[in-house]
Amino acid sequence: MIPTLEWTDAGVRFLDQTKLPLEEIYVTATSYQDVATIIRDMIVRGAPAIGVSAAMGVALGVERSKATTLDALTSEVETMCDVLGKTRPTAVNLFWAIERMRLLYLALLKEAGITVDKIKTALIKEAQTMYDEDIAACKAMGKFGAALLPKEGTVLTHCNAGALATCGYGTALGVIRAAVEAGSKIDVLADETRPYLQGARLTAWELLHDGIKTTVLCDNMSGSLMRQGRIQAVIVGADRIAANGDVANKIGTYSVAVLAKEHGIPFYVAAPWSTIDLATETGDGIPIEQRDAREVTHSNGKQMTPDGCGIENPAFDVTPAKYVTAIVTERGVLRAPYAESMQAMLELQTETANA
Amino acid sequence: MIPTLEWTDAGVRFLDQTKLPLEEIYVTATSYQDVATIIRDMIVRGAPAIGVSAAMGVALGVERSKATTLDALTSEVETMCDVLGKTRPTAVNLFWAIERMRLLYLALLKEAGITVDKIKTALIKEAQTMYDEDIAACKAMGKFGAALLPKEGTVLTHCNAGALATCGYGTALGVIRAAVEAGSKIDVLADETRPYLQGARLTAWELLHDGIKTTVLCDNMSGSLMRQGRIQAVIVGADRIAANGDVANKIGTYSVAVLAKEHGIPFYVAAPWSTIDLATETGDGIPIEQRDAREVTHSNGKQMTPDGCGIENPAFDVTPAKYVTAIVTERGVLRAPYAESMQAMLELQTETANA
Repeated sequence: MIPTLEWTDAGVRFLDQTKLPLEEIYVTATSYQDVATIIRDMIVRGAPAIGVSAAMGVALGVERSKATTLDALTSEVETMCDVLGKTRPTAVNLFWAIERMRLLYLALLKEAGITVDKIKTALIKEAQTMYDEDIAACKAMGKFGAALLPKEGTVLTHCNAGALATCGYGTALGVIRAAVEAGSKIDVLADETRPYLQGARLTAWELLHDGIKTTVLCDNMSGSLMRQGRIQAVIVGADRIAANGDVANKIGTYSVAVLAKEHGIPFYVAAPWSTIDLATETGDGIPIEQRDAREVTHSNGKQMTPDGCGIENPAFDVTPAKYVTAIVTERGVLRAPYAESMQAMLELQTETANA
Repeated sequence: MIPTLEWTDAGVRFLDQTKLPLEEIYVTATSYQDVATIIRDMIVRGAPAIGVSAAMGVALGVERSKATTLDALTSEVETMCDVLGKTRPTAVNLFWAIERMRLLYLALLKEAGITVDKIKTALIKEAQTMYDEDIAACKAMGKFGAALLPKEGTVLTHCNAGALATCGYGTALGVIRAAVEAGSKIDVLADETRPYLQGARLTAWELLHDGIKTTVLCDNMSGSLMRQGRIQAVIVGADRIAANGDVANKIGTYSVAVLAKEHGIPFYVAAPWSTIDLATETGDGIPIEQRDAREVTHSNGKQMTPDGCGIENPAFDVTPAKYVTAIVTERGVLRAPYAESMQAMLELQTETANA
């Protein structure tokens, strides 16, 4: 399996995604600040991977803390959560993961006989559990989603919603992997995904790693290929899904969704339940990260635009629910109307939990 | 004015567009073979500029010919036309311009008392006339098209249909220039236009040169900006327009057109009449150039994709006429149904010519 991130005795080890596909270099974070930098600089990226990274960041911060009293540790934990929460604004998994660690910490504080050492052990275990849950969720998404893809054909994906965006296996690419494992003959078109080229660099790398035929195209080419009947389905990941089914994902996703609709091609989103933000009513409420203009203006250190021109560089866009054919989660497949299908799935989970 | 190409005593001088925007370097072709290489390597590009370049290539070849007999010269001219015609397949202006030179040559052969020297003089004059006509056509397009743009707002353009794609002033950017000169408050969003970055490198450079506010965005961003109401009109150039109004233009144009339609934004095409190919019934008949994969895989010499992945690199796509709000030519504005409006304009021109 592709080792996107891993808890080790030396710290949290990350595959440096800025160096792919030509170099496989690992960096080890030895402090929660390191983890924050690694998230901000996109050495690790992808909503699910960011979430688990942040949880491991909290665990690492607590493990390495020199605090001897619970009061001192509590103050440090609040700082860690704050610093890690300010790395990237759009992926809700980040906040979900940090909050899960914070609430566990607060719960542990109330336990009889709790000590700093017991807290360290429990938080490390929790982060590792979240890692395992992430892989299990991807596998479950794969199982649910594989049936949606054609038995034979070409699937377009945008950005990287793969093993590299998760703890392994992937969301959208997990669905493709599962379909291929189930015997479907699928080849993949990977949008290169400007400006950061996650498709060209990461999606192509990890799919070829698994022997899945992959062709990279510029983001402006998929519409024409759709018109030629060369794309049978689209599947992408998500950074945040609002309560009405609006999907925030990598910039360009919305355009792909509109083009898919125009050509009658199904447009699927695969994301773990932790990506669904029921507290945000619609996509309009999702904050969109604006990144450094230099990602657009420069290419491998060389300036490609003239001095004095403006630059747009939103990292994400919002695809309204009406363009989304289905949302694949580890709990099952959601269909429009999404507010109702999410509610039904929540109730089902509650019943199962109570059974 | 921006000196895209120019006939000089030393040969045909080109502004090297592969070096823009950071360097303004000129190269001078001293043979028709040089001109062919310059077109193929995209030192000059843009359908109208390619056309006049090829005409100047023929004139240059004839001027520099060592043929002393008309028979020998005729054979050389056929070779020149053949070599120049094989440089790029999509822009019809190339073939139109070569054919105009070839037909003039054949007509001159039939004149009483014709000599090699008289032919040289006449062909150089013809190429220079085509140069002047191109600029005049751009100015006329500007006049007709300016009224279509909003008095105040943001106009999106794709690729470079500017002074750099013509002998000066531009087609789509000529319309924008004319609107600004007429007092409209327009700022421009320029799609960077992967893989060759004509928007980021060329459109931004030439519009800023003229003091027009320009913002570069990745090709995958315009859909989201349209959804936010931030784009009031789209205007692009064309490499070939079929008899039914289908438009071949830079890859990505079709996606922009679909997105514009989805958002109720007018989508305009500006092109000289020489871009209209009445012999090609629909866009399906237009050959689409596939370019070297390296344009997609490499960026400033560095490989961005893993070894073993497939690459798509069509240079153009076809936008069906139903997405085109209007086509601006130097003879006036065409509206759907295009076959009829083209015919009506042809008849009008014939009447005017006969009057």
